[in-house]
Amino acid sequence: MNTFGRKFRVNLFGESHGAGVGVCVDGCPAGIDLRQPDFAADLQRRKSGARGTTPRIEADAPELLSGVFEGKTTGAPVAIIFRNENTRSGDYADLLSHPRPGHADFVAARKFGGYADYRGGGHFSGRLTLALVAAGVIAKKTLGGVTVTSTILEVGGAKYGEHEALLEEAIAGGDSLGGLLECVASNIPVGWGEPFFDSVESLVSHIVFAIPGVRGVEFGSGFAAARQKGSEHNDPIVASCGKTGTNRAGGVNGGISNGNDLTLRVAVKPTASIGAPQQTFDFAKGRVDELLIRGRHDACIALRVPVVLEAAVAIALADLMLLNS
Amino acid sequence: MNTFGRKFRVNLFGESHGAGVGVCVDGCPAGIDLRQPDFAADLQRRKSGARGTTPRIEADAPELLSGVFEGKTTGAPVAIIFRNENTRSGDYADLLSHPRPGHADFVAARKFGGYADYRGGGHFSGRLTLALVAAGVIAKKTLGGVTVTSTILEVGGAKYGEHEALLEEAIAGGDSLGGLLECVASNIPVGWGEPFFDSVESLVSHIVFAIPGVRGVEFGSGFAAARQKGSEHNDPIVASCGKTGTNRAGGVNGGISNGNDLTLRVAVKPTASIGAPQQTFDFAKGRVDELLIRGRHDACIALRVPVVLEAAVAIALADLMLLNS
Amino acid sequence: MNTFGRKFRVNLFGESHGAGVGVCVDGCPAGIDLRQPDFAADLQRRKSGARGTTPRIEADAPELLSGVFEGKTTGAPVAIIFRNENTRSGDYADLLSHPRPGHADFVAARKFGGYADYRGGGHFSGRLTLALVAAGVIAKKTLGGVTVTSTILEVGGAKYGEHEALLEEAIAGGDSLGGLLECVASNIPVGWGEPFFDSVESLVSHIVFAIPGVRGVEFGSGFAAARQKGSEHNDPIVASCGKTGTNRAGGVNGGISNGNDLTLRVAVKPTASIGAPQQTFDFAKGRVDELLIRGRHDACIALRVPVVLEAAVAIALADLMLLNS
Amino acid sequence: MNTFGRKFRVNLFGESHGAGVGVCVDGCPAGIDLRQPDFAADLQRRKSGARGTTPRIEADAPELLSGVFEGKTTGAPVAIIFRNENTRSGDYADLLSHPRPGHADFVAARKFGGYADYRGGGHFSGRLTLALVAAGVIAKKTLGGVTVTSTILEVGGAKYGEHEALLEEAIAGGDSLGGLLECVASNIPVGWGEPFFDSVESLVSHIVFAIPGVRGVEFGSGFAAARQKGSEHNDPIVASCGKTGTNRAGGVNGGISNGNDLTLRVAVKPTASIGAPQQTFDFAKGRVDELLIRGRHDACIALRVPVVLEAAVAIALADLMLLNS
Repeated sequence: MNTFGRKFRVNLFGESHGAGVGVCVDGCPAGIDLRQPDFAADLQRRKSGARGTTPRIEADAPELLSGVFEGKTTGAPVAIIFRNENTRSGDYADLLSHPRPGHADFVAARKFGGYADYRGGGHFSGRLTLALVAAGVIAKKTLGGVTVTSTILEVGGAKYGEHEALLEEAIAGGDSLGGLLECVASNIPVGWGEPFFDSVESLVSHIVFAIPGVRGVEFGSGFAAARQKGSEHNDPIVASCGKTGTNRAGGVNGGISNGNDLTLRVAVKPTASIGAPQQTFDFAKGRVDELLIRGRHDACIALRVPVVLEAAVAIALADLMLLNS
Repeated sequence: MNTFGRKFRVNLFGESHGAGVGVCVDGCPAGIDLRQPDFAADLQRRKSGARGTTPRIEADAPELLSGVFEGKTTGAPVAIIFRNENTRSGDYADLLSHPRPGHADFVAARKFGGYADYRGGGHFSGRLTLALVAAGVIAKKTLGGVTVTSTILEVGGAKYGEHEALLEEAIAGGDSLGGLLECVASNIPVGWGEPFFDSVESLVSHIVFAIPGVRGVEFGSGFAAARQKGSEHNDPIVASCGKTGTNRAGGVNGGISNGNDLTLRVAVKPTASIGAPQQTFDFAKGRVDELLIRGRHDACIALRVPVVLEAAVAIALADLMLLNS
Repeated sequence: MNTFGRKFRVNLFGESHGAGVGVCVDGCPAGIDLRQPDFAADLQRRKSGARGTTPRIEADAPELLSGVFEGKTTGAPVAIIFRNENTRSGDYADLLSHPRPGHADFVAARKFGGYADYRGGGHFSGRLTLALVAAGVIAKKTLGGVTVTSTILEVGGAKYGEHEALLEEAIAGGDSLGGLLECVASNIPVGWGEPFFDSVESLVSHIVFAIPGVRGVEFGSGFAAARQKGSEHNDPIVASCGKTGTNRAGGVNGGISNGNDLTLRVAVKPTASIGAPQQTFDFAKGRVDELLIRGRHDACIALRVPVVLEAAVAIALADLMLLNS
Repeated sequence: MNTFGRKFRVNLFGESHGAGVGVCVDGCPAGIDLRQPDFAADLQRRKSGARGTTPRIEADAPELLSGVFEGKTTGAPVAIIFRNENTRSGDYADLLSHPRPGHADFVAARKFGGYADYRGGGHFSGRLTLALVAAGVIAKKTLGGVTVTSTILEVGGAKYGEHEALLEEAIAGGDSLGGLLECVASNIPVGWGEPFFDSVESLVSHIVFAIPGVRGVEFGSGFAAARQKGSEHNDPIVASCGKTGTNRAGGVNGGISNGNDLTLRVAVKPTASIGAPQQTFDFAKGRVDELLIRGRHDACIALRVPVVLEAAVAIALADLMLLNS
């Protein structure tokens, strides 16, 4: 299922080397300003082109198929599509017999009985995050004053800004790097989320783990909390609005937003596609053999994830907002 | 909403100091052996009594209200209730005006307009995990050969087994400790999960973050992946069944189970209730004031979480199994 | 799945001859007055005892297990159970091999691999409507000023009130009668429901067809509309609030409530259990053979359905109200 | 929400006079033959052109955007779009102030705060059934040997085939006619559906009432059952496969398919758009005034509904099939 949300519902579709990718946003409120140029900034942030990102460049022009009339959402589902143009499917011809480590090639072939579109990862491709970012633009507008901001904390273990040498080294060696991101959402009122299964953390982590390459999600003090004492961890409430003196809880108590910033950190694995030869199973030969991956890839996909992470968090929050209004 | 799952659907209800807690498991297949004694082992594991756990002891005898006939599930919803017996509600009388830091007292009062049952945390209480463990017993039986096992890795930052001194110190100081847990699920076939929103990680993290006190969830190499290179992180496939030489992916590629063990680690915060006095807002006085928490509590709730974590993961996997059968 | 609703979510469980039946209402707003006596009137209306209804009499006292504190809903799930007391399971011993026509005996045995609780229809029993009526009481209170009222129009084809002779004749002959009901919901504001799949009619018919014995549902002019002209069928709007001069649409246009009364009619089949001998397949003998049904039954189940129909419609409307608030 | 289904999930989008209409089918199994020509027959059946149908003719060529590779479904979401070409939006300019009786103009404007696309009914238009029919084509293929067939029983109260004079009269008078349809689904195995809320009738009626203009749905003997005796209504089982001697139940007992044909009848109201002048509220003038509807319309929309009804029933059955496999 490629559907997320109970009231603000997002449906992704498309493939890396098919006609295109798209999204249908069902449940978006009526009356929100929405025109094609509104997508430009976030789509540009997601775009490749910077050092360490893939040389495959697409125009990525969204077509608003439905749900918008005279520059406003109508309350009907908003469908948006992006055409694929710059595809080189020949690059992927042998993935069926020799699946790439760290990719979905093997599981997709098995899960879908050999019918999956394997070209460029098909439906599993990171290109689908283009549609996710588009949905995120709508979610951010739906959220009104609630802001969602992501930043890169680390690349390959180095502080962001001090990572250039590591990145150059990885590129030179045909290797790739992981990264650590932070996301902060501000101005969330007290009371979003439900106890237990629809806790804020449950819904946010659900969609964040849908982003390709995410390996871990933590809120507030996160994994460090496992090593703390209660006297170090508890956030004293310091004002009647619920403001706390510290924010180790990351803005959530008992699954419910507490009026402080929602804070989370996300670990992104190193890009699975690397230039160096790898040993992995060759199903045609029936034995492990060397694989050399062709195609164009990001040396550090984490560099492009911030805007995707914002989109994911914004979608979860838009759903929470509508569920709690 | 206290509902999780699309085919194996779990519904929690109850309060810490009300009539009891319970669960309704809808979608459980027919023909599974299920009798009251089947719950004993896991309920015992969750029970308090060990050093560092609350002195509130309950019989915790499950009553199977429905969905079972002649020792087998019937395919109809299985409802189970646990009566509360050992409650001391007087302990919680002043939480309304002086909410406890790190608890849901404040958000519950605000979200539910002052109508929440505040006694012992009410519906937000960790006592609800009793019902979750009961549902987990059914999920484990539904899973057949798929096994789910949790262990404690660390308590308060110390390796489990070497943590006794830290724990005694915390107890003596009226303080509490966090903990780090691991969960491994074995024998999952290739192909469970969906690309993007219903990825294995999405569904598992969704329910794991419903466990009170969880601050972080990571799969496979987790946060360490952010500091790795692709050449260090990729798992080479070494056999036609999908077995990989390493398991940094934690058993999932592209959101789909790859036939290797599902592995995750979970950070549990230190128990919010501590014996030491805390400064926090007193709504009756309109200013920060000292709070001294009474009631009976765990010095390290993480010690009781392993079986709860197993239950949560088993429920997500049972749903995935039924969705993929 | 025994779950209905997206925000006001109802979960039924239980069996005719097991420990009892119950319901969990998830998503009920906080602050609604709710005490045990509030259920008495509707439960009494559902109760048997009148001419043409089963002599099985149960106390039907609801136990409010959760979600209520000091006489108000808390916002947490409300679980209610009813114990079974007056059961005679011996009456149903041979249903496994000789399933009753018009009942679920055969399909239940096949669907659930022989594990279904067959006593008195098990989970398929009309006794489950007890739990539905209890949920309906909560739904009606949630709806505030929106009222839901059902009446019997016909019994066995005779106008209600003129049906006594027919009913006596059916009872005397060991036979049963069907009935026709109407339900009207008033004071629904303009705008509930969604275009297409979550139209008011879609959601209402969904839950109304969950009532055992319902064979047809029509809104407004219903089946008569198939024989009308547009000039006879269209409802002219006569006021700015949306009030129409006629109400052939039954209160809904394009799936959305239009501010007029929601009106529907429901056909209830004659009780399947009849005293007269019937020819049907005997799986033990491998051939058609005579079946004589024992047990206690209603000669006209339609007589007890009005309050069940109100409950079903109220639940759908409560969900629509919360989704549209 | 424009989403239906739990495993075979259908999402409609689009408007009558916008860029186009479309559908995203999520959860379609992999390996189903699907090419553009497969849609031709059903789309042709839905097309207008026959006597009594609108003169607006569209090419209605489906573009398969995703989820199909080398002529087979891949298991990924299948998105299909149809471009609008033959639109005359000027025809609808005054609907905002003078909403048409029997249409959604008024409720759409109110529900969506004046932001709805009103041209040709916008998202509420019958043109959306084009996308529904496309989804139905996929559903029918997913169903394999289960067949779904609809026929027209009556037009304007006259037997189909004897209705021509009535139709000509209606056309001549600028009026419209309703119709009665039947749908039969064969080869459904025993056991689809769930007790209560996910009964076969619940799911089928849910989606059938999403078809614009449907006023009533009945299964098996339907409303006639309300006037029958149990001895007349019960279907004796006559073979071990579950075959019954009669089929008054319409193929369902206790909400579960019983192995016999699923049969339902559907009442379709007369087309709301008529040529004759109508009195209805004019919001610009603040009083009732005469409305003359321009635009191109069907004199009897029921004539085009059979293939839409098949699509709706097939979608519900495909979901039931996947849920029960």
